[in-house]
Amino acid sequence: MDGPILVIDRSTDRPLGVQLVEGLRRGILSGALRAGDPVPSTRALASEVGVSRSAVVIAYEQLAGEGYLEMRQGAPTRVAELAPGAHSDREASNRRKLRVAAGGSRDMRRFDEAESARPAEPRIDLRPGRPSTARIDTRAWRAAWRHAAALEIPSESPPDFGVQRLREQIADHLRHARGVACDADDVVVTAGTSEAVALVASALLELGGGQRDDGDDDGDDRRDDVTVAVEHPGYPSARRTIERRGARTVPVPVDADGLRVDLLRRMPRPPRAVMVTPSHQYPLGGRLPVSARLALLEWAREHRAVVIEDDYDSEFRHLGPPLPALASLDDGASVVLVGSFSKVLTPWLRLGYLVLPANGAIRDAVARVRADESSPVAGAVQDAAAALLASGAVRRRIAVTRRDYAHRRRLVLEALDGIAGAPLSGLDGGLHAVVRLPGHAASGTVVARLAAEGIAVAALGDYSAVPGDEEPGIVFGYAGPGDTLLVEALARIRAAILDVT
Amino acid sequence: MDGPILVIDRSTDRPLGVQLVEGLRRGILSGALRAGDPVPSTRALASEVGVSRSAVVIAYEQLAGEGYLEMRQGAPTRVAELAPGAHSDREASNRRKLRVAAGGSRDMRRFDEAESARPAEPRIDLRPGRPSTARIDTRAWRAAWRHAAALEIPSESPPDFGVQRLREQIADHLRHARGVACDADDVVVTAGTSEAVALVASALLELGGGQRDDGDDDGDDRRDDVTVAVEHPGYPSARRTIERRGARTVPVPVDADGLRVDLLRRMPRPPRAVMVTPSHQYPLGGRLPVSARLALLEWAREHRAVVIEDDYDSEFRHLGPPLPALASLDDGASVVLVGSFSKVLTPWLRLGYLVLPANGAIRDAVARVRADESSPVAGAVQDAAAALLASGAVRRRIAVTRRDYAHRRRLVLEALDGIAGAPLSGLDGGLHAVVRLPGHAASGTVVARLAAEGIAVAALGDYSAVPGDEEPGIVFGYAGPGDTLLVEALARIRAAILDVT
Repeated sequence: MDGPILVIDRSTDRPLGVQLVEGLRRGILSGALRAGDPVPSTRALASEVGVSRSAVVIAYEQLAGEGYLEMRQGAPTRVAELAPGAHSDREASNRRKLRVAAGGSRDMRRFDEAESARPAEPRIDLRPGRPSTARIDTRAWRAAWRHAAALEIPSESPPDFGVQRLREQIADHLRHARGVACDADDVVVTAGTSEAVALVASALLELGGGQRDDGDDDGDDRRDDVTVAVEHPGYPSARRTIERRGARTVPVPVDADGLRVDLLRRMPRPPRAVMVTPSHQYPLGGRLPVSARLALLEWAREHRAVVIEDDYDSEFRHLGPPLPALASLDDGASVVLVGSFSKVLTPWLRLGYLVLPANGAIRDAVARVRADESSPVAGAVQDAAAALLASGAVRRRIAVTRRDYAHRRRLVLEALDGIAGAPLSGLDGGLHAVVRLPGHAASGTVVARLAAEGIAVAALGDYSAVPGDEEPGIVFGYAGPGDTLLVEALARIRAAILDVT
Repeated sequence: MDGPILVIDRSTDRPLGVQLVEGLRRGILSGALRAGDPVPSTRALASEVGVSRSAVVIAYEQLAGEGYLEMRQGAPTRVAELAPGAHSDREASNRRKLRVAAGGSRDMRRFDEAESARPAEPRIDLRPGRPSTARIDTRAWRAAWRHAAALEIPSESPPDFGVQRLREQIADHLRHARGVACDADDVVVTAGTSEAVALVASALLELGGGQRDDGDDDGDDRRDDVTVAVEHPGYPSARRTIERRGARTVPVPVDADGLRVDLLRRMPRPPRAVMVTPSHQYPLGGRLPVSARLALLEWAREHRAVVIEDDYDSEFRHLGPPLPALASLDDGASVVLVGSFSKVLTPWLRLGYLVLPANGAIRDAVARVRADESSPVAGAVQDAAAALLASGAVRRRIAVTRRDYAHRRRLVLEALDGIAGAPLSGLDGGLHAVVRLPGHAASGTVVARLAAEGIAVAALGDYSAVPGDEEPGIVFGYAGPGDTLLVEALARIRAAILDVT
């Protein structure tokens, strides 16, 4: 081990673990540590550098995950062979094995090659929606799958609403994390948020537009008469998913506080449902105040409308007290809560849920859809997720990533706050930020320049639900890449913005 | 070990393994072997009874799976505590642990209790669609999940069309098993057949009814103008899934050879697509002859229609030579092949696939839908399935279950063939059978009487796509329950039928 590579600076508040990882990574990339070289044992390095042995274990695991080290059971950990030219973007490649089982290595390499043959991926992917998996508890993860794989294999589809034990764990999770007093019977396990939204949309169409007593007596229950109000700007693929199921969407503007409930109330033909992101408006970041929440629920009751609460990243609240989910204020008639484990674990799992209102026709309609189509979520995924939730690993991970994202959020603020003409917003919660820009030309220039530098961000205009009413700006996530890449990306974003403001 | 319990009779052709399992099960149920008693070591029992040790291992594992034995790593295998009164229907309960990991047992017990609180399940479930999982290779199954769990956890959704390595394995599987010369790029991984059918339906709506050059120049591409021809009788939930996506279905009758392609050709307004089960018509069992296949493809080319080939159980062909999939005759423009691992492994996996034609607008339309909705199939499921296919376990299982189902089919023929007024059919392939009955009253009587005896079968009328044109009869699967229960059920079915004919 080359001494100077590993300078641990105890005078900064930079975590020792981060310094360890960065030092080792630098050593490998610079060639000071060469492919095939064994690294010191965790015990030796811990005592040499004066950190805990577990800090070294975690650093080695992270570097193995990033592809810098090769760990094999029963063999010393070594520096991995890096693909030529792959040094700088190695961190983005995340299909490395932590442990290569005997005989499996050739297969995995084939797989890696096939994956890397895909069209050019951005070097630093800041498109919103990518959580960090850097500190996922791999031990608990592996134990959960081992548990699921050891269960007897049923010869039938998983239950339509999900495996009972997972539904109980999700209800438990929501009681603690979101203040929603729901029961396992109210929970439907889904394949992420997309499938949850699609399922609710299909159920609304099952009910038809006319099946309610809203004084709007058109008696018409044709499928194409179902309308769903959506936020503008808002989540584009959810909008398209709802439309694809045959409903019409109608945009309702949002402001800094989220959905303009006053405008919703003034609609001459009340929609059958409204989809809303009250805890952290997507993408602008507003949090719906309590008064607006109560007004929304009153409106829904009055018109027997369904409120689809997309609670997509509410676990991460950085400023201001967290508000419990809208569903917690409901009297069990209006709100369908939609959530997922994409942000607290990874979208790789494709695991989400609905919480249905205790009463309401929507419940039976969801059951009818699922009876025909079956749950798309493999039983083994449900068994593993239940074990993972029961182990406490999810709760611990939320706590860890919360601190992690708060730190990254500070990095964003440091780099981008206070640029004249480019206000920063959306940062009170979640894991993405919005920068408004002075015009569409500026917005296009920034996105294109960053793309040319290998950095992917989204254009704020892409979230518009009203063609022609696109606000200029960019939206980017800050959770996915490691600190080093994030800091580099933020500097490049800053430079690109300064050039157009 | 009580000697007389284990009588191995070498003069019958009843497999030794089956005799072992039955003898041990009888011993436990009769009380001769008591809860907590250790059973002999596999080595001791093998030499005592004169069978191979692996036969004993398999018998113990099956009994552990059924809940009769408790196996713990590092401890002797013991007779399990049976729930009071659960003795007779124990075999139906399939959520037992094979191995109970330390600390996990309490949780699983809670889970089992919750599951058993569901509404009364039939004692012997012969509803079609349930494969046997009795002889699934649990070692390969567990290894596959272990492999998947050891991979680094990506922080993104799985690729829209599926993990590359699984797509390669599926293409390989189809080349060998179905004669389809497809490429990994043509394969889309889906959450079973339902999601595959739903995805194709959404893609068809994406294209609209008017987007083709069929001489039927109505220029109308409204969503509700997309029609899909379906078999009558046919798969009811696929029909409803297509309709739920916004398409109209039009029934086309089938006969003993499958879809009446001549009637399809005579339709005044050719449908946008036709869904067909050429290898084993569902439920009647016909196999579409080569001439009809060629006529169907010619019709599709002429009208630029899409043929959705539902290849649901074609791996199991008992009589007559297997025909390659319809897709193998296609010139890469018309046929979308739909298949799943529900029959060759278990529907618990919720894993299926589409094979898209090399050309054709349907491919881009599927890509657009998936870009918005993401794949519903967890990456870990895809990784595990790829490993399972690569290990050869799927190929071996198909060979084993093929023999198994051929044996069960003989049991069905022995019990039910030749009853006057109740012709038996559908048995040339697959894992279900159809018995026509002399009238609706007889059909209702048989279904209800069997239900009262705890045996679930389906009514043939439920498959009708034309209200009012329901044929009287029953449809039942013969793969799910063990031999003993199947023989009992067949005797009861025979008695019920004889009473109404």
